[in-house]
Amino acid sequence: MQQEPPTDSSGFRFTPLVVVELASNVKEETITWLLSRIRDQQQNGGAELFAEQLGPSVEAQEKENPNVFLVGASWQRLLSGAEDVGLFKEYNDGSMRGFTRANKHNFKDFKGKVRHDLSDANLRTALQHFMPLSYFQQEKYSERAVLLRRLLSKGLLVQIFPLHEKEELKRLSFSWYKKVKLSLQPLDDIRHYYGEGQALYFGFLEYFTFALVPMALIGVPYYLFDWEDYDKYVVFAVFNLIWCTVILELWKRFSASLAYRWGTLSRKKAFEEPRPGFHGVLGFNPVTGREEPVYPTAKRHLRIYLVSLPFVLLCLYLSLYVMMIYFQMEGWALSVHDEDPTFWTGILLFIPSIIYAVVIEIMNLIYRYAAEFLTEWENHRLESSYQNHLVLKVLVFNFFNCFASLFYIAFVMQDMVLLRQSLATLLITSQILNQFMEAFLPYWLQRRRNKKMIRKVQKKRTLEDKELPLVEQVRLEADMSTYLGTFDDYLELFLLFGYVSLFSCVYPLAAVLVVLNNITEVYSDAFKMCQVFKRPFSDPAANIGVWQLAFEAMSVIAVVTNCALIGMSPQVKAYFPESETQLILWTVAIEHGLLAFKFILTFLIPDIPKHIQIKLSRLEFESLEALKKKVRSDCLREPSDGYCPV
Amino acid sequence: MQQEPPTDSSGFRFTPLVVVELASNVKEETITWLLSRIRDQQQNGGAELFAEQLGPSVEAQEKENPNVFLVGASWQRLLSGAEDVGLFKEYNDGSMRGFTRANKHNFKDFKGKVRHDLSDANLRTALQHFMPLSYFQQEKYSERAVLLRRLLSKGLLVQIFPLHEKEELKRLSFSWYKKVKLSLQPLDDIRHYYGEGQALYFGFLEYFTFALVPMALIGVPYYLFDWEDYDKYVVFAVFNLIWCTVILELWKRFSASLAYRWGTLSRKKAFEEPRPGFHGVLGFNPVTGREEPVYPTAKRHLRIYLVSLPFVLLCLYLSLYVMMIYFQMEGWALSVHDEDPTFWTGILLFIPSIIYAVVIEIMNLIYRYAAEFLTEWENHRLESSYQNHLVLKVLVFNFFNCFASLFYIAFVMQDMVLLRQSLATLLITSQILNQFMEAFLPYWLQRRRNKKMIRKVQKKRTLEDKELPLVEQVRLEADMSTYLGTFDDYLELFLLFGYVSLFSCVYPLAAVLVVLNNITEVYSDAFKMCQVFKRPFSDPAANIGVWQLAFEAMSVIAVVTNCALIGMSPQVKAYFPESETQLILWTVAIEHGLLAFKFILTFLIPDIPKHIQIKLSRLEFESLEALKKKVRSDCLREPSDGYCPV
Repeated sequence: MQQEPPTDSSGFRFTPLVVVELASNVKEETITWLLSRIRDQQQNGGAELFAEQLGPSVEAQEKENPNVFLVGASWQRLLSGAEDVGLFKEYNDGSMRGFTRANKHNFKDFKGKVRHDLSDANLRTALQHFMPLSYFQQEKYSERAVLLRRLLSKGLLVQIFPLHEKEELKRLSFSWYKKVKLSLQPLDDIRHYYGEGQALYFGFLEYFTFALVPMALIGVPYYLFDWEDYDKYVVFAVFNLIWCTVILELWKRFSASLAYRWGTLSRKKAFEEPRPGFHGVLGFNPVTGREEPVYPTAKRHLRIYLVSLPFVLLCLYLSLYVMMIYFQMEGWALSVHDEDPTFWTGILLFIPSIIYAVVIEIMNLIYRYAAEFLTEWENHRLESSYQNHLVLKVLVFNFFNCFASLFYIAFVMQDMVLLRQSLATLLITSQILNQFMEAFLPYWLQRRRNKKMIRKVQKKRTLEDKELPLVEQVRLEADMSTYLGTFDDYLELFLLFGYVSLFSCVYPLAAVLVVLNNITEVYSDAFKMCQVFKRPFSDPAANIGVWQLAFEAMSVIAVVTNCALIGMSPQVKAYFPESETQLILWTVAIEHGLLAFKFILTFLIPDIPKHIQIKLSRLEFESLEALKKKVRSDCLREPSDGYCPV
Repeated sequence: MQQEPPTDSSGFRFTPLVVVELASNVKEETITWLLSRIRDQQQNGGAELFAEQLGPSVEAQEKENPNVFLVGASWQRLLSGAEDVGLFKEYNDGSMRGFTRANKHNFKDFKGKVRHDLSDANLRTALQHFMPLSYFQQEKYSERAVLLRRLLSKGLLVQIFPLHEKEELKRLSFSWYKKVKLSLQPLDDIRHYYGEGQALYFGFLEYFTFALVPMALIGVPYYLFDWEDYDKYVVFAVFNLIWCTVILELWKRFSASLAYRWGTLSRKKAFEEPRPGFHGVLGFNPVTGREEPVYPTAKRHLRIYLVSLPFVLLCLYLSLYVMMIYFQMEGWALSVHDEDPTFWTGILLFIPSIIYAVVIEIMNLIYRYAAEFLTEWENHRLESSYQNHLVLKVLVFNFFNCFASLFYIAFVMQDMVLLRQSLATLLITSQILNQFMEAFLPYWLQRRRNKKMIRKVQKKRTLEDKELPLVEQVRLEADMSTYLGTFDDYLELFLLFGYVSLFSCVYPLAAVLVVLNNITEVYSDAFKMCQVFKRPFSDPAANIGVWQLAFEAMSVIAVVTNCALIGMSPQVKAYFPESETQLILWTVAIEHGLLAFKFILTFLIPDIPKHIQIKLSRLEFESLEALKKKVRSDCLREPSDGYCPV
């Protein structure tokens, strides 16, 4: 299919996979140079890809950017890319093996057709590997790389994104969220279209929802019948603690199964190249020996520990300070209302919460920008290290902002009724806000844009099936919002997990609410992925990375808070009528026991299911045996000292 | 040197490396079969080694066992073994690479001589790989393996051990412990002679001693000037906690440097074969596809969780019970003495401690046998898994036995003076006992044996240099005690670490005592390795394994105990005169903070030093590049679809 590039109705000679948009004021020679970089033979330092400028749309306007290019690749080039990025595919014998072009016909279902043989997301990973942005890979980190970095940093390179596949997308969205009957998500199809990182997020979302169902089922009778009976909450809390640990451990196993099936579990990572924003004195990479910018680790550590860390601590302090002001305002409003209970003072009661909620959102927003700026300034060499530092910064602050007031109510004010109210309010409002801001608002905006474009095209000629021609399709997608990765989605799940686990014994209905939220979340996330955002580049992830750690840390904190809440309950206090000290000592002892049990459980449950471990070991064993065989045959061919191993 | 086997004065045609002793009542045909297994060509399923029966000693007695065999190997065979076990050696360019015979001359200092080119311990590892006991490796797990297992389990195979090298040993022991001037241990030489596992133990012992020096230095003034001033102990305890965490983390880095230098860090482990004691229904290994016994994991888990675990818990309960009896006796003796303080009741005061100490030793001994029996019965497939389960069982019980009484005194009786006394008594007596039982007693026994043998030989002929002929040397070594591995040595260090870290703030002199003990321990351990024990087979370890975990667990427990001790001190209590609850809550909060800090520290300090990480990455990068090059050249040679990557 790719051997002879098909001719598109719009006059394109190949299947375009990726769109590159340059700023409209880029000089002609820069464009010529860039296109030659993309099209040239590898021997001449090019990427050996197809590239073509996008023609003007039906109703070309003055402001339309002419510098939009479509990039594609020959079938051979894509296969070679798949080999280079270390893709794993299912072999004929059912095991997962690293893909090589030499024995490509031994892979399952390999028929020599692009669409069937490599997943759509894999195609893009393979192509991305050759994209000019990854030109740092070339032996000489020369003017070329510097120029490219300048293109990026000066905003001359506007965006690079993969094109949607209308047909595939229609099929996927139907099986994903358009069906009426309830069913599991088509994870394999999601992975096929969006790549492993996305599919793992949706897998985690689904798993998390199912894992919460038992908690929700137990929570309902607690809510209905024993609203004030703390005594039985002890059982509920202990169950929750063990449950949280077990589901997180089991997720590791489930995620390993998924990653094995998708070939990312045993995929060896290629050497990570420096991220585009990385700068430093030109030197030599000690690992690869190639010329590239070098930045001393000690300097980065100084920036992290002397600037970023104090800044984060300062922000946490500010957040606490704002919270204290909120509680003072709350107390003041209450006293005003108590003195003179009119309608207007009744409204006044709500004012502090509203102001606090708005201030929290603003602080989160400002902090997010500050964290991105600081992490950029720390000048991390690798994208992964940049991401980890950014996630850590944002995570800690969001945790504080969301839960500090609850902690204050629970452990300083010790007001369980208020805690329950605040928890319910926070949980429900944040869910509604999130769903609205995340999916419906962007959808509505995008829908308007779509209709405008269709109307514009219809003016010129009649459309069959309301299908847009390629040129218009590309222009439309270029205007879509950019999907910024799974960060915000995971963060939302993380905070929900916090609501469920930290104070579950005060408000057993939390699990029910979160389950309901997650079900709608699946639909709204699926919807926004398919309809609202540009298609993201795929990310061949093998696990959910730093988020696993974050969720586990949360479950450790949950042990502490739940034990404290149980210790503070009047029913437990009644067992130690004479001495509060005894009560606290017992609580602390039980908490330590639970923590120890938790860690032992983490050790006892293997991270990779046994049947996959066996498959991995067999693969390793076979490669060792093959090596031995090769050593022997080499030895027999050219005996070095007359002795060859059997 | 090995190319043409030298003729020994006693008539041996090769350098014997390993001694195999069969029971004296083994049938002639078994011996013939075994020897043919050892000597046969590999094509015929043999090990292709040299083997010879040991002649009668000078004064042959009736009871002397004739079935002692010396085993050696040709130089080629040893090199092939070194390659098979995945040995890493220093390459010409200074990096560590997997040894291959094909490019053996590119390795540093390779001169084609056995003694120089492979470390002595490596030679034995390579030979051990071919020893008949590892015949499970052969494709067919047939009667042969069954027969061998029967040999072992029926006691027909008495022992297999490597021979000492008199010359090398003399040199090693001189540089190790016979020098008068204090210096670091010759770790590289120890590794050369005994292998990596031993050398890592001695490295850890030395590191641990140095790491305790700052603690000891700070402890002395505390002991001399501020005996009763808890207030300053808080600083001391906090310092200790951070120090313990830091030294354990730094040890990981130091151990990684050692393991890198010795080539075990990046060595890929060969597939572990089932341990000799493993039994089950004959089936197929799912990884290798070879025929071998198969035992269901579920059954093993049932044995572990339904028998071993309850048994361990029962023993812990018994240990606690005995401890309670001891405290009752102690109280009773004290009351008798208080009523009627005479000389005899004064002696009576010591009786309970003595009885308790003896009972503890007996319990430890019985428990050790029970643990070995149970772990054997759990039927672990791998030696490593067997060792881990055994270590865990013994560790938990020893920890309880040693520290339960101290915990009771500290937290139930809350008698700090008694705690200090008990700690000092336990520490000092256990050190003296250990040194005596471990080194001097076996040495004295061995010395007697040596002298007897020399006298016996001297009767027959005069000896030059008091050197024994090979036959007598072999007989002598066969009678030496067997070194049972580093288990007991590590266990001792573990308990000492416990004394230092758990209650350091009550008895700051503990670190001083442990440092002194460790210095003598280095000498006595070195001494017993060189003079008392048979030479052990080497164990190519890359780290101290499960002990790292054990030491880290101890340092976590230490945080808890130290915080509790500080919270209980009268000086700290004085800060909270009105409310004990406040005091406890603060203590718990600070403890949680310290634990969190500890975990963060563990994350922040990388386990492998950066310069070694770079070397490892470079090696990996080079092998990837080489693979790419090979793929390209293969492709150019036999183009499959006319397209080759650059």
